[in-house]
Amino acid sequence: MREVEERKKRLRRVRLSLPKEGALLITCPENRRYLSGFSSEDVSLTESSGALLITRKEAFILTDPRYQEEAKACGPLFEPRIYRKGLVAELALLLPLLGVKTILIEPRYVSVALLQAMEKKLSVKIEMARPVIERMREVKDAEEVRAIRKALSIAEEILSEVAGYIKAGITERELSARIISMSHEIAHGPSFPPIVASGPNAAKPHAEPTDKSLKAGEPLIIDMGVKWQGYCSDITRTFFVEKITEKFKYIYKTVKEAKEAAEQKIKAGIKAQEPDEAARIVFRREALERLFWHSLGHGVGLAIHEAPTLSYRSRRKLKAGQVVTVEPGLYLPGWGGVRLEDMVVVTDDGFTRLNTLGFLEF
Amino acid sequence: MREVEERKKRLRRVRLSLPKEGALLITCPENRRYLSGFSSEDVSLTESSGALLITRKEAFILTDPRYQEEAKACGPLFEPRIYRKGLVAELALLLPLLGVKTILIEPRYVSVALLQAMEKKLSVKIEMARPVIERMREVKDAEEVRAIRKALSIAEEILSEVAGYIKAGITERELSARIISMSHEIAHGPSFPPIVASGPNAAKPHAEPTDKSLKAGEPLIIDMGVKWQGYCSDITRTFFVEKITEKFKYIYKTVKEAKEAAEQKIKAGIKAQEPDEAARIVFRREALERLFWHSLGHGVGLAIHEAPTLSYRSRRKLKAGQVVTVEPGLYLPGWGGVRLEDMVVVTDDGFTRLNTLGFLEF
Repeated sequence: MREVEERKKRLRRVRLSLPKEGALLITCPENRRYLSGFSSEDVSLTESSGALLITRKEAFILTDPRYQEEAKACGPLFEPRIYRKGLVAELALLLPLLGVKTILIEPRYVSVALLQAMEKKLSVKIEMARPVIERMREVKDAEEVRAIRKALSIAEEILSEVAGYIKAGITERELSARIISMSHEIAHGPSFPPIVASGPNAAKPHAEPTDKSLKAGEPLIIDMGVKWQGYCSDITRTFFVEKITEKFKYIYKTVKEAKEAAEQKIKAGIKAQEPDEAARIVFRREALERLFWHSLGHGVGLAIHEAPTLSYRSRRKLKAGQVVTVEPGLYLPGWGGVRLEDMVVVTDDGFTRLNTLGFLEF
Repeated sequence: MREVEERKKRLRRVRLSLPKEGALLITCPENRRYLSGFSSEDVSLTESSGALLITRKEAFILTDPRYQEEAKACGPLFEPRIYRKGLVAELALLLPLLGVKTILIEPRYVSVALLQAMEKKLSVKIEMARPVIERMREVKDAEEVRAIRKALSIAEEILSEVAGYIKAGITERELSARIISMSHEIAHGPSFPPIVASGPNAAKPHAEPTDKSLKAGEPLIIDMGVKWQGYCSDITRTFFVEKITEKFKYIYKTVKEAKEAAEQKIKAGIKAQEPDEAARIVFRREALERLFWHSLGHGVGLAIHEAPTLSYRSRRKLKAGQVVTVEPGLYLPGWGGVRLEDMVVVTDDGFTRLNTLGFLEF
């Protein structure tokens, strides 16, 4: 019931952004779930499990027969419309019945091919929706933070167990398979394919696990997360395999210092670029800035990567209730890398850390 | 070496479709891998790991620093261009250097937002590419069939093992977690999230596994596949939990008969709708056609769903070398369903079955 009330409130806010005789077509999977609770995932980049259509008075969930049972189970706010001839044909029937003159689409979640089909088959004006729902999703309510906290605590449980398997000889793929398997057993699956990158592979921030065996003395980055009730977690820890080296200690400590410097900046009202810059100041002092290849962090929620981005380019201000990662890293091609990542909630006077798992001490 | 030769041949065929002073931008992940071997997967619907740009003379792989090592490892045919400011900014630099006047994009794999950014930032003509690479991908060469066969044989091994765990009390999620875990251990991951649907859930063709326990007397659909060297397999078997019922036997036999009737039609030159119609004739005879909610099958390759579609709407002709699924099913809301799926290669005088796993006998 509380869930339905919350969704009703969200729907009301979305409707405020609609023009008269306008309808919003929602094809973004996370926006779809945020408003309706419909949890079926899309089959692939180009194969959707359904869309929402919202006018000032009506709300529909449009899907094909494969998902009709799920659509019906989705509660009182959205009326299911099951189509056999595709989304555009269904819209061509439905929009005139509703008196819709303008349809708003989500430009990042509509392909050029779909737009072309709509232009050809629909006799309404097509306009771009502003990211109203994305802005709403940035600021998490208590229930959402609870789901994220749960997703993170399961991720930490899995990571702690897997850390116990680290030894020379085991392969990246074996560790990764164990993470994925536990993610399905005790959570609702991984929030992204785990990164298990050892030695030189750890110099690739988005490495995919290989059949490479771990070797003594190598660094090992594990970056993983799980889903809980649709919400994602994201955590990275770096380990050493059996033998620790001075180089590892130096890089690890530098990254940890950069992470702490970044976190010290976080609070509502600052520019999103400030924590990134604070981490860079530490790396610059060590003449290592060139080895930090990505931005400091990103929002996390129903999507694993969402607004806000903590990057040197981002001038938007942080808001209380945003959940973001802080994940500086240093990458040395040929040797490997170190990345450390926690998740925090932005508050008015700082941040609340969601992690409980600590770091290596030496 | 053979691989590079094959890719060179593919690249030559793609270039034949390019206009003078034209460039093709490839954002479809499967097309990207088919031509270049670049195997990093996209992070999400809206977050690409890279794109290819092909002119009559040059070929580039454009990616961000996170994937630079993978791009460099990707062989001699594609020159890596690492961008920090995004794809469109990189194209704005590169296209004038190459003298490109027209850029062709893949309309199903470019979002409206990306198109708008290109229109704003690029001073070249933007046109829609024809699906030249998709057509090439439909017909598999011997190496591709070998990879698919391997992916299917591993899927059958996993399915056979998991079939041994079926008993009242075990949950759908437990079976699904086992499938996923083995897919990562002995293959390159699942080709799609496994469907493990028992009792009433088996009436949802795309059900997601739940915490529901299996009950004696229920039907159980398992639809799964794995990847091997990027290539997908896809197999469905339906089981009963402990006790078999007359209703189960009747539905199972009817689906199996429909599947065999469909397969009898398959050979190069027939219309893709003919096998679907053959299955429907069997269902119609039993007055059950209304319970067959999806099309008969689809092509499988680097993508789990690709051309050709075996549907009653498809008038295209089958070609030798296409790999397709044959997967009729009947769905009875409240009770469950039965679906049976094999993969076959279309040949000039019929088809070659890729499966070796049989069916229930009773």
